[in-house]
Amino acid sequence: MSRMKHVAIVGATGAVGEEMRLCLEERNFPVGKLTLLASKRSVGKTFSYRGQDIAVEELTHDSFAGIDIALFSAGGSISKEFAPSAAAAGCVVIDNSSAFRMDHDVPLVVPEINPLAAANHPRNIIANPNCTTIISLMAIAPLHQAFGLKAIIASSYQAVSGSGAQGIAELEQQVHAIANGLPLEQKVYSRQIAFNVIPQVDSFTDNGYTKEELKMLNEGRKILDLPELKVSCTCVRVPVYRSHSVAITAQFDKPVTADAARASYAGKKGIQLMDDPYNGKFPVPLDTTGKDDCLVGRIRKNLVLDNALDLWVVGDQVRKGAALNAVQIAELL
Amino acid sequence: MSRMKHVAIVGATGAVGEEMRLCLEERNFPVGKLTLLASKRSVGKTFSYRGQDIAVEELTHDSFAGIDIALFSAGGSISKEFAPSAAAAGCVVIDNSSAFRMDHDVPLVVPEINPLAAANHPRNIIANPNCTTIISLMAIAPLHQAFGLKAIIASSYQAVSGSGAQGIAELEQQVHAIANGLPLEQKVYSRQIAFNVIPQVDSFTDNGYTKEELKMLNEGRKILDLPELKVSCTCVRVPVYRSHSVAITAQFDKPVTADAARASYAGKKGIQLMDDPYNGKFPVPLDTTGKDDCLVGRIRKNLVLDNALDLWVVGDQVRKGAALNAVQIAELL
Repeated sequence: MSRMKHVAIVGATGAVGEEMRLCLEERNFPVGKLTLLASKRSVGKTFSYRGQDIAVEELTHDSFAGIDIALFSAGGSISKEFAPSAAAAGCVVIDNSSAFRMDHDVPLVVPEINPLAAANHPRNIIANPNCTTIISLMAIAPLHQAFGLKAIIASSYQAVSGSGAQGIAELEQQVHAIANGLPLEQKVYSRQIAFNVIPQVDSFTDNGYTKEELKMLNEGRKILDLPELKVSCTCVRVPVYRSHSVAITAQFDKPVTADAARASYAGKKGIQLMDDPYNGKFPVPLDTTGKDDCLVGRIRKNLVLDNALDLWVVGDQVRKGAALNAVQIAELL
Repeated sequence: MSRMKHVAIVGATGAVGEEMRLCLEERNFPVGKLTLLASKRSVGKTFSYRGQDIAVEELTHDSFAGIDIALFSAGGSISKEFAPSAAAAGCVVIDNSSAFRMDHDVPLVVPEINPLAAANHPRNIIANPNCTTIISLMAIAPLHQAFGLKAIIASSYQAVSGSGAQGIAELEQQVHAIANGLPLEQKVYSRQIAFNVIPQVDSFTDNGYTKEELKMLNEGRKILDLPELKVSCTCVRVPVYRSHSVAITAQFDKPVTADAARASYAGKKGIQLMDDPYNGKFPVPLDTTGKDDCLVGRIRKNLVLDNALDLWVVGDQVRKGAALNAVQIAELL
């Protein structure tokens, strides 16, 4: 492959697809040509890239000839159908869906945590992890390196952007409808999301956990290469537009203090410490919206478990939780 | 005391004070006379009780002559200043603030859990527990009875009603301002609450936990009479108007299954099981708004700890979290 790449975005009109385009531009990714792919009904739309208008093309199995890297963010079923065609055409797929994440021959990569895993991609597919998992692990990985991670208990506060542009539109519509006495529309979420919280993200599995809750377990084990890691969590949708927050209890092999934990973030990329609660410093979702770095705060000794900390991490779901992480994977190639 | 009581509400114009009045009426509490007390600036306001208009009177140290029961909900400093005067006048104070909760000679009561504690109130003061603690313990107490509670790890999703009428007004103002391009007002919360979540409820203590987070530990030990109980939690304000939700990991002495846990709620008052996620049944804050009962769902085995469950409980902060519980205490007298 030449230095300049022909890059495609599959799902170019979605919330994450749009952000991928912005991330490529902002990070000066060596894009020789950018192809925007989406379903037939989006053909005709154009988007600006480096001052140039690019028309959306219809995604077909023949879309990938000559393309070096395809960033997929159009849902699991589109990935399952089209990623193999792209890979067969010689294109490296970086897939934001959950379709291939747990396949043993597909690396699952957070560039700050396991960049080397990206090198070996025999099927030409690299998976981008779940957004809540990425954001949580950005806070946990430096602690794991210092103290040896054993278990995670977590509760999430997930933004509607996690459901794509439709999730954002649903919250906006409901807030507007309530203010104006209009009927509420409810297509994306099982319950009203405006002025409510919903303890369901993704569908339920047999053991009472949602798929989203088990992603933190299964993807966490794979990314950290900790097959014995224990994780239990509750994933909750909240009426926030685009940053996820996670309240985490993390237990370690070695003794740990809050000060030692804070020190472990020194020099780490992609995660910033914002932890001085006595002076009002702790991160909230609005702090990370549109930003690359995750923010961690509220670090303190857990009062129940040995060698354990409680902490609070926030990250932009659309950026580090999805588009940015995918573009960072592309940069590793 | 005669059967009919002379009842006073201190803080009668606040969100909880107003709800106390409604609860007295709805529950046919034997009110012979109702006195509404508040600060000087509320004098002149009137509120309806059983079709009768009652004028708000100024709270003074002489307000309590002849009053049998005074329900206080005007903040800790008002309670500290006026509850002793009320008690000295022979009135039983049921105090919704945190002022006296941990005093050894002041009972701390959730009527469904430790009703007998209310009988012994040597200082004529009975404390109403913290709202998040009440709602959490409503879900945990039946499990404790069956399996023996050992530890709690929890994350809360707390409504703005927990900050009183001002908290509700602040969320309303911010949502309206964002929709109309107006400046946001921020008086109650340290950060914007609209479309955001704030991992701070009450002020921070030396160990990095907020006072609110330590209430679940200290009040939980007292109410359940479990001095060795371990509790660690993260309390978070969310843009919901008036029901609190709590994601709870509870560890027990005895082995427990989700089915056995569900069975332990049979016949329990004040808590309803809403736990059939495969058919879309789990509680959300809007389900309990204006309702007396707390709702519990998402019961499943915790994947990290032995003998532990994860669950999700929701309750109306203004009702069971405050006003209703106080009126229920009055009913015990």
